[in-house]
Amino acid sequence: MPGTPPTRFVYLGPEGTFTEQALRTIPAAERGSRTPTRSVPEALDAVRAGDADAAVVPLENSIGGAVPVTLDELAEGAPLTITREIVLPVQFLLAARPGTTLADIRSVAAHPQASAQCRGWLRDNLPDAVVVDVLSNAAAAISAAEGQHDAAICAPIGATRHRLAVLADKIADHPDAVTRFVLVTRPGPPPPPSGDDVTSLAVYIAHDRVGALLAVLTEFAVRGVNLTRIESRPTGEALGRYVFFLDCTGHVADVRLGEALQGLRRVCADVRFLGSYPRHRWNTPAADQPVPPPAGLSDADYADAVAWLARLRAGELS
Amino acid sequence: MPGTPPTRFVYLGPEGTFTEQALRTIPAAERGSRTPTRSVPEALDAVRAGDADAAVVPLENSIGGAVPVTLDELAEGAPLTITREIVLPVQFLLAARPGTTLADIRSVAAHPQASAQCRGWLRDNLPDAVVVDVLSNAAAAISAAEGQHDAAICAPIGATRHRLAVLADKIADHPDAVTRFVLVTRPGPPPPPSGDDVTSLAVYIAHDRVGALLAVLTEFAVRGVNLTRIESRPTGEALGRYVFFLDCTGHVADVRLGEALQGLRRVCADVRFLGSYPRHRWNTPAADQPVPPPAGLSDADYADAVAWLARLRAGELS
Amino acid sequence: MPGTPPTRFVYLGPEGTFTEQALRTIPAAERGSRTPTRSVPEALDAVRAGDADAAVVPLENSIGGAVPVTLDELAEGAPLTITREIVLPVQFLLAARPGTTLADIRSVAAHPQASAQCRGWLRDNLPDAVVVDVLSNAAAAISAAEGQHDAAICAPIGATRHRLAVLADKIADHPDAVTRFVLVTRPGPPPPPSGDDVTSLAVYIAHDRVGALLAVLTEFAVRGVNLTRIESRPTGEALGRYVFFLDCTGHVADVRLGEALQGLRRVCADVRFLGSYPRHRWNTPAADQPVPPPAGLSDADYADAVAWLARLRAGELS
Amino acid sequence: MPGTPPTRFVYLGPEGTFTEQALRTIPAAERGSRTPTRSVPEALDAVRAGDADAAVVPLENSIGGAVPVTLDELAEGAPLTITREIVLPVQFLLAARPGTTLADIRSVAAHPQASAQCRGWLRDNLPDAVVVDVLSNAAAAISAAEGQHDAAICAPIGATRHRLAVLADKIADHPDAVTRFVLVTRPGPPPPPSGDDVTSLAVYIAHDRVGALLAVLTEFAVRGVNLTRIESRPTGEALGRYVFFLDCTGHVADVRLGEALQGLRRVCADVRFLGSYPRHRWNTPAADQPVPPPAGLSDADYADAVAWLARLRAGELS
Repeated sequence: MPGTPPTRFVYLGPEGTFTEQALRTIPAAERGSRTPTRSVPEALDAVRAGDADAAVVPLENSIGGAVPVTLDELAEGAPLTITREIVLPVQFLLAARPGTTLADIRSVAAHPQASAQCRGWLRDNLPDAVVVDVLSNAAAAISAAEGQHDAAICAPIGATRHRLAVLADKIADHPDAVTRFVLVTRPGPPPPPSGDDVTSLAVYIAHDRVGALLAVLTEFAVRGVNLTRIESRPTGEALGRYVFFLDCTGHVADVRLGEALQGLRRVCADVRFLGSYPRHRWNTPAADQPVPPPAGLSDADYADAVAWLARLRAGELS
Repeated sequence: MPGTPPTRFVYLGPEGTFTEQALRTIPAAERGSRTPTRSVPEALDAVRAGDADAAVVPLENSIGGAVPVTLDELAEGAPLTITREIVLPVQFLLAARPGTTLADIRSVAAHPQASAQCRGWLRDNLPDAVVVDVLSNAAAAISAAEGQHDAAICAPIGATRHRLAVLADKIADHPDAVTRFVLVTRPGPPPPPSGDDVTSLAVYIAHDRVGALLAVLTEFAVRGVNLTRIESRPTGEALGRYVFFLDCTGHVADVRLGEALQGLRRVCADVRFLGSYPRHRWNTPAADQPVPPPAGLSDADYADAVAWLARLRAGELS
Repeated sequence: MPGTPPTRFVYLGPEGTFTEQALRTIPAAERGSRTPTRSVPEALDAVRAGDADAAVVPLENSIGGAVPVTLDELAEGAPLTITREIVLPVQFLLAARPGTTLADIRSVAAHPQASAQCRGWLRDNLPDAVVVDVLSNAAAAISAAEGQHDAAICAPIGATRHRLAVLADKIADHPDAVTRFVLVTRPGPPPPPSGDDVTSLAVYIAHDRVGALLAVLTEFAVRGVNLTRIESRPTGEALGRYVFFLDCTGHVADVRLGEALQGLRRVCADVRFLGSYPRHRWNTPAADQPVPPPAGLSDADYADAVAWLARLRAGELS
Repeated sequence: MPGTPPTRFVYLGPEGTFTEQALRTIPAAERGSRTPTRSVPEALDAVRAGDADAAVVPLENSIGGAVPVTLDELAEGAPLTITREIVLPVQFLLAARPGTTLADIRSVAAHPQASAQCRGWLRDNLPDAVVVDVLSNAAAAISAAEGQHDAAICAPIGATRHRLAVLADKIADHPDAVTRFVLVTRPGPPPPPSGDDVTSLAVYIAHDRVGALLAVLTEFAVRGVNLTRIESRPTGEALGRYVFFLDCTGHVADVRLGEALQGLRRVCADVRFLGSYPRHRWNTPAADQPVPPPAGLSDADYADAVAWLARLRAGELS
């Protein structure tokens, strides 16, 4: 039923990862059901099939980059829409069974992306420990809890859930790392404009990349629409064929963005609209504040131009 | 009274020039009054003051270029609107009093632009004649009729009116030369779209010319609007400050052109809309046929994009 | 003989015009011969034929715009090269035979461009006088000196030469009006870079104007070359075909401008190089000072990029 | 010693993966030493430290996209240079201990990227088997060989090395999938131009993405340089900050590409040159043939423009 708030949530599991943490920032999820899935496709397919109302999956990390499977799944198959974004600081811990000290640690279980983000800390603090790859942050915590390895790099929620002691906090080399998650539902009218929104797109361009990508960027630039993310993914057809995932400032209901979207529709091989939703304002450096539009491209300039054109069409030239 | 067809016409005189010829291609002018003026400003001021309903003035010639005073007058003062264009082949004659032969001719009266357009013919046929500058094509005919000079370069209408014999026809070096005239009225709703229209603009750009003119051209290019004329004129403030006179294909009522006009309004220092009116189809080389819009920028592409955006805004993503 | 300074000068006559004034700012012209011609083509043909070493002709006026015949003559025929520019304030006077007062004046002789530039002054000060068109500023002075008309609008040099009294000084509506003249010679190596040079070009673009002109401007913009003048002239083939006359900052010997010129050569139907020569610094508003290059496009940035590329090619990557 | 062919090779291990297959296409590697490493950073650090002469690592896959760790390692730390690319068809097999049949298979070990690429085949042929994630294609083969799982998705070299029987060949959903590997050495002069080369770059742009990325693409487009790959990676500083990995057609020694590189150097925050090397021509669809340069941007056009500029500078205008 359109407009009914979701009550049945799924999320990329297992329990005890950052994704569960992200889900639990949504008030409705606290009251509804929360089911982990084994993979991003499984989460999204549950929404597509109507077995769940909404899914939370990771989209990108400020260190590790895009989560390819999420992008690929959103770009293909039955359309889904993003209705919310959640940005979480990613705080990695070194956790171990109570009583363990740093000096005891010979092996550390970690997801490869996690150990990559903590490489400097490991080199400085555990130069002799062996880092063993495991398949998720939660799996790392479990393997430490079960004694397969001496310690784990994991999320705070993983340490809590598996009753591990925190030997070191905030061990990532980039202390400001964040991960961005999205809440995805079946298609429906987008949430109303909030005044500070993000619109996500998947854009397919024709083979000649320079000219076609120039044309895409020009459609945005000429209307003063700011791009905040651009990621390329191969389409799978051949090397050198890409789909671009773009985030831009604004809402599909805005005149400015509507005009740019129509321009993309005309010049691109295909455009998939992935949603307009409020920007998640987290604790951000000043440099990441919304960029003001260039001269002549403010909302007031747009309104003025609309009124002027109406006068011209009515024959009022002065 | 808006909508009333004009009955009182003025035109750049004197009688017997190409401008009178242009005026007489308009059916209403045959039935109304036709008053010559001494200058373009006088003609346009008569319309502004309500002393005439419409004026015919020359805008550009395919050899001599723009008529600066017409451009300057349209760009400044109370706004006027172009409602029709008339393109006339410019056929220069060598005319003299009956009985004169080429061998008799020692002096030829001609407006400097006319003698410039016939320079090759004069060099080949009257190498020893002196060419004397006069102030209009009609003045040339008069001076030949009155015997001040042996012959005149003039328009067909000038030879007829002053009872001169035609010694040589079509003597211009470029036999396809044409002059474009415009019919100008006080502001009012533009004529309805005819399917093949021209829109004229005067565009003022800020001081940094490369970037600003690039921005103007980009507003057109990104919407597939074709420019058929671009003329620069100094604004009079200083060397290097220009107003650009642009003609583009389409009508102010078109979605595509309306969007481009709004873009110009936003990025230019000023834009003066000079009118949307039917293209005058004269006998033209194939190369001057309307250029088809680039891929993705046809009217059908525009309609498709509008419908697609409406679906997105309604939450229909597939 | 290349390198020999010119001694035989021609200029657009008659004597007593601004062009003679411009010529006499050149020291070599004071020592050499100075011959007026009846037209710009006559002056330039004298240089082409070797009958003169150099010609001074007007190129543009800050009110009246380009001098079309000069542009057309430079763009066609045997190539010539501009080696100097001279910018003169254009001060129009109202002059009459000694003893005449403003109250006596019933008719004023004036070149149409001159009366156009003084329209406001005439309306305010001589509302009842008839303005009679004549063919040059010098002809106006002569007609006043000979008593055909009561007064003349002319240049200071015209009043002096014809012994007229100055009834009113600086009567032009734009008091800062200037005219730009050029000194033209047969082809030869350009004067060495002065550090503040102008380069003039005539650029022919293919039929599709938006895209082709965008490409031309992009060649300049991408190298940070500033355009200070852009004028369009019809090519004479048909309405809508243009040659663009461009002035840009810099010298043909500069790396930056050389790269841009090569780019134009590749993308344009034709490019005619008209010369690199020192900018004439006259008393100018601050806004007309050379525009500094955009970020990353200074001469230092160019030198840095050249050195960096050399290192890359040598295999030095750090 | 510059110019000495490498003899000590490292590659991303373990043995029995596609990377080893790629290495063994290099004749010198057959004669030299071949040491697997546990990770891409370990391979590249061995080259940096002088412990190896060259490393082969995967760069991108036509289905899975870029290999992030390879991009990140090439963009950071001491510079390295790519001297060769190797493109291999990626043929996945289903392999099991001899005697196993499809009907026996309850569990399949696979690297997540491999199982993702074979998802359609698995659904159609082994709908009831559990797919278990392991950390490499080689690890999958080992787990099947050791009996931990009934079968493995792996590379041909993995099946051979671990004496597995091939139950199904070419099971990837995209049968034309390829992986691109690069041979990386310490900096030195690039291999000489082969006539069909690729140049790889890492480009950092300033914060305003639309304008800056437009500027980068324009530097290529204006010189007719074709981009064949564009990948974005976060810089790790904050969401929304990217480094772009670009591959373009041509060699650093080319005039055209040299000019574009200098342009990037000027307009980008930073540019890291990653190498010029011969394109690996593998069996490719026609659509992937090199795109011919646009009109006016062929090598002949470049040579013509260079010669023309030299004539201008010498004062030869015709």
